[in-house]
Amino acid sequence: MTLFDTGESETSGPSGPLVRVRLLVAYDGSGFSGIAPQPAVKTVGGTLATSIERVLRHPVMLTVAGRTDAGVHAWGQVVTFDARADGLDLVSLQRSINKVCGPAIVVRSAEVMPQDFDARHSALARRYRYTILNAATPSPFLAGTAWHVPEALDLSVLRLAADPLIGEHDFTSFCRKPKVPEGVGFSMTRRVLDARWHDLGDGLLRFDIEATAFCQQMVRSIVGTLVEAGLGKRTPASVVTALRGADRTLAAPPAPPHGLCLWEVVY
Amino acid sequence: MTLFDTGESETSGPSGPLVRVRLLVAYDGSGFSGIAPQPAVKTVGGTLATSIERVLRHPVMLTVAGRTDAGVHAWGQVVTFDARADGLDLVSLQRSINKVCGPAIVVRSAEVMPQDFDARHSALARRYRYTILNAATPSPFLAGTAWHVPEALDLSVLRLAADPLIGEHDFTSFCRKPKVPEGVGFSMTRRVLDARWHDLGDGLLRFDIEATAFCQQMVRSIVGTLVEAGLGKRTPASVVTALRGADRTLAAPPAPPHGLCLWEVVY
Repeated sequence: MTLFDTGESETSGPSGPLVRVRLLVAYDGSGFSGIAPQPAVKTVGGTLATSIERVLRHPVMLTVAGRTDAGVHAWGQVVTFDARADGLDLVSLQRSINKVCGPAIVVRSAEVMPQDFDARHSALARRYRYTILNAATPSPFLAGTAWHVPEALDLSVLRLAADPLIGEHDFTSFCRKPKVPEGVGFSMTRRVLDARWHDLGDGLLRFDIEATAFCQQMVRSIVGTLVEAGLGKRTPASVVTALRGADRTLAAPPAPPHGLCLWEVVY
Repeated sequence: MTLFDTGESETSGPSGPLVRVRLLVAYDGSGFSGIAPQPAVKTVGGTLATSIERVLRHPVMLTVAGRTDAGVHAWGQVVTFDARADGLDLVSLQRSINKVCGPAIVVRSAEVMPQDFDARHSALARRYRYTILNAATPSPFLAGTAWHVPEALDLSVLRLAADPLIGEHDFTSFCRKPKVPEGVGFSMTRRVLDARWHDLGDGLLRFDIEATAFCQQMVRSIVGTLVEAGLGKRTPASVVTALRGADRTLAAPPAPPHGLCLWEVVY
């Protein structure tokens, strides 16, 4: 049985002491329905857990640093779980996972961490990258990792529109409403530490955004809205209006998932 | 009926004057059995020709600048063919091809050329790029476009080994023997204008090679041999021995096709 992201875990089990393992994981999200395991659907978490359990021969509970949606990629996803200390060989574990899960999922490193380290709760910040190919014609080599926007984007407007995002705001306008039971409270307030556009040349634009945490579809909704500004379809000031309005209809629809990548988790 | 690469073409047909059309084509070769049309196999040329013929409503004969093998990519492939001048709309032709053939095949530009322009025979040189990821762990995002070499490559040795390739040589040791009828002569002598390794950082190495023309598997066999030198499995001097020996067994097996890309054709 595979559980997921409980936030709590036992430090020992019926078969002796457990150690906390941390995996640094990259994946091409194209063929996956996101990271969270779901029944009868191919997910990054489900694929990883199956592979880990096959090697370790005991069930594991994965905790992930950032929940990526269907089609979203990761370069620096962090996953933790507990493994039986007895006979644990991380080099061989990493090699086995990569053999079975590659080339779409690659474990970049595997290490033992202090027992209180948790991929999700120990994270101080997450850094996402969104890549846009702003050129008349698409590229076959970027089809899976960049959003192709053929109309000319005004980079100075993109930057102007991104500036007000920095700081602590209620991102209700930019987030998918979470499914919580009636009467349960939730907050969409998040602290954005950095939000910056980079011109990589050859029409490639990259948006880097760092926040202590993100709510669902937040980066993609922000990028969708900034791109509308960069195309002259809305004013940069309308981003401020959307932030203050706390109304989903004030922001643009989310940019496509394949341009997004969870780049790094800061601890 | 689609013919291919005849080198000759009629300047007019039963339905009026023809014009020579030049397409600049990029493709991800992963899903294709090379560019040359073959019966009952998915090829870049076959896919393009079918799409062009559907738009133009007459058969076309494609000529390509560089014959890429199965799995090899192109950024700057050049294709020429003759189209009926009557009602020809290149903007709409390009858009239609890209709609049907994308995202794997993309026409970057389409233009009318002088009647004597020929993708193959007018080319002065071809420039290929070979990309290697020299890092302990692979990357999901480079799995389709770079050869993953986990053992450390010595860049100075790679460069030393590549130097003797420049100039006019008999590349018999580095080429697949062409299928020609008994008694028909052929030459493997080619003039290499440039052969250079670039360190792109983060473990990415790129080998750029330019020659007036290439024989089959030439770039991949060269890269396979240079990599053996870079790993210390052979000496840089053995490249000279292979060049002089005109013997296929003196060179290494070809590097995998997915690291190779026809970058540019010079006219």
